Amino acid sequence: MKPISWTVTSREGNARTGILRTRRSVIETPVFMPVGTQGTVKGLRFEALESDLDARIILGNTYHLFLRPGLEVIRACGGLHKFTSWNRSLLTDSGGFQVFSLTDLRRLSEDGVEFRSHIDGSKKFLSPEISMEIQAALGAEIVMVFDECPPGKADVETAQKSLELTARWAKRSRISFDELQANGSDTGFVNLGFEEASAQKELSGTQALFGIIQGASHMNLRRESLDRTIEIGFDGYAIGGLSVGEEKTVMYDVIENIAPAMPYDSPRYLMGVGTPEDLVEAVARGIDMFDCVLPTRNGRTGSAFTSNGQINIRNSRFARDTEPLDVDCTCSVCQRHSRAYIRHLYQANEILAGILITHHNLAFFLDTMKKVRQSISLGVFSAFRRDFLSKISASDVNDENGG
Amino acid sequence: MKPISWTVTSREGNARTGILRTRRSVIETPVFMPVGTQGTVKGLRFEALESDLDARIILGNTYHLFLRPGLEVIRACGGLHKFTSWNRSLLTDSGGFQVFSLTDLRRLSEDGVEFRSHIDGSKKFLSPEISMEIQAALGAEIVMVFDECPPGKADVETAQKSLELTARWAKRSRISFDELQANGSDTGFVNLGFEEASAQKELSGTQALFGIIQGASHMNLRRESLDRTIEIGFDGYAIGGLSVGEEKTVMYDVIENIAPAMPYDSPRYLMGVGTPEDLVEAVARGIDMFDCVLPTRNGRTGSAFTSNGQINIRNSRFARDTEPLDVDCTCSVCQRHSRAYIRHLYQANEILAGILITHHNLAFFLDTMKKVRQSISLGVFSAFRRDFLSKISASDVNDENGG
Repeated sequence: MKPISWTVTSREGNARTGILRTRRSVIETPVFMPVGTQGTVKGLRFEALESDLDARIILGNTYHLFLRPGLEVIRACGGLHKFTSWNRSLLTDSGGFQVFSLTDLRRLSEDGVEFRSHIDGSKKFLSPEISMEIQAALGAEIVMVFDECPPGKADVETAQKSLELTARWAKRSRISFDELQANGSDTGFVNLGFEEASAQKELSGTQALFGIIQGASHMNLRRESLDRTIEIGFDGYAIGGLSVGEEKTVMYDVIENIAPAMPYDSPRYLMGVGTPEDLVEAVARGIDMFDCVLPTRNGRTGSAFTSNGQINIRNSRFARDTEPLDVDCTCSVCQRHSRAYIRHLYQANEILAGILITHHNLAFFLDTMKKVRQSISLGVFSAFRRDFLSKISASDVNDENGG
Repeated sequence: MKPISWTVTSREGNARTGILRTRRSVIETPVFMPVGTQGTVKGLRFEALESDLDARIILGNTYHLFLRPGLEVIRACGGLHKFTSWNRSLLTDSGGFQVFSLTDLRRLSEDGVEFRSHIDGSKKFLSPEISMEIQAALGAEIVMVFDECPPGKADVETAQKSLELTARWAKRSRISFDELQANGSDTGFVNLGFEEASAQKELSGTQALFGIIQGASHMNLRRESLDRTIEIGFDGYAIGGLSVGEEKTVMYDVIENIAPAMPYDSPRYLMGVGTPEDLVEAVARGIDMFDCVLPTRNGRTGSAFTSNGQINIRNSRFARDTEPLDVDCTCSVCQRHSRAYIRHLYQANEILAGILITHHNLAFFLDTMKKVRQSISLGVFSAFRRDFLSKISASDVNDENGG
């Protein structure tokens, strides 16, 4: 039995809808996964994620949780689900991306990467084996291999070298992961109390492991990385190393060339991307899963995503504006609160401003994905895509460029 | 017809339960009113205040809302209820207390008080007439007279002089308030869309005005202030100028002497007080209404009120503690989250820490008042009071002194 199942339910061009089943939830794809870096989707109560937004899967960041509260606390509290009270699916990243963002604080070797904690400066070490051990202790439904993430504009030699290392680390991740599953290190392995017991049927109850395709902007390297990742064999496949400084056209090119070549019967995950426009464009090219900090991070800086583009609530033209953030949105924030009120909260440094905009932004992202799924299943995705992109970019309310 | 009605439903000694009806809600007393200084109870969504906590009345601060967003914005948005989306009762203070806290920035005259905004340093002026005008524009169900609030340790001469000024200002407040009600300046005056239409029956639909008794710690001055306030005549009566630096025994003495002498058939409101212990002690002395920033402010600094006393979640002994904040609490936070998780959120600077502790603290305050009401109506309040105070002060989990 497999840890997860994923089946295509409809297609239009390269876009597809599917049903992803994990031991803890049933997830319709394409799906956007809210980011819960430190065991919380910043500013939202889990009740809102469950009932109002109906998120079925969220992310946790291995790097952050490893540093704080640390593995011993997470283990003592029964793993990340029990610690946070989130009983639906979790995906944890490997920690690699964060570590490689600490350019001044790290030292890379074949074995792994030594770095200094951004919290207290203490020396830490991550390797494929340690990342797998942490992710088993966290107990997410989906675990990511430990990879090296080169800059988006890395030259071919750098990217090739990085790809080779990532391939060797992927193998070590796979071996270590399998051992941990066999010896019961996964804290998320439970057979009772599932929210959706049906999700468990015909599943092994263990964690799933996803491979990551690297290669920067070099298409031949991306192809090579894809082949070597498939060769090892994973439960799902991700494209990493995009939206890290390269041109947007390069990103779209990589997705267009690589996504359709990724295994058809496994979920395809585009890591760390992106704006609503990016999501729709990537779905058109064959992607099924997304995560990004944009809706939560922008929510805290007053920036709201709307069907007419982004607006920043700090703008004085909203001071007496009794319309909701997005007149087309049905979320609980837009049903209740005006731009004028949310602007006042923001100007007055009230945390409710961030809470409300974050909630709306996530509602907008999740609702967009719902519309994407509906239009694919009705065979009208290409029309939806055209209308969506035209509306979101043409309006005069657009305060800022996304990304 | 009166703007509000209040009737005693049961008594035990000086303690009493009652039903307060306003044009927007039915409020069981004794009641604790959460403080929503800038048009938001910090960190809470209104949905939580309504459904989970079932608060029937909250406070707004005239001083803060006058400075930001300002009257023009509030008026353009239809008053404070419509602006914030809170459709239950509101009480607004007069702005006096905040202005008199700005000791270095204000200049007092017979007419009113000139002060500098703490936001931008600009010169502002408040008087009884201006305070009434602002409070009419805010449109709360209960309006407070504009008073001078001397320090708790003010000598008899200072307190007497202040009391005289407060009495003259109370008269001016009354006159100005009545004019504003007559000329329709109250934005909260609406005849439709009440949450509880029954609350409107036999009520005038206008705002209610409460008088404030001052006199610092001098009992003869307190008595004089009480007489002069009653002479003017108000819909309810408040004790102001307590919990402002005087000894706790002085506060209890003033309440014990003054509260039972306040009109029996009107609600008695103790302004800005206090800890859960203070609330229970003041109810025993005849008080019906309270407000205080403690549950919300302490929530943001990691301090939780529990039936066993206050705990501070930063304490390292909670790092692996899987118990809820208060094992006896039935609020949504205590039903779901552990001390270990909330401590982690606090240590990681996640705003969810403040959101969760604030929610629990308000639940604890409101639940305490519910138990107070139940015990009075069952005639077992004195036993409740003894048990409550003994439990809350004796436990070894008590991290800090309240207040």
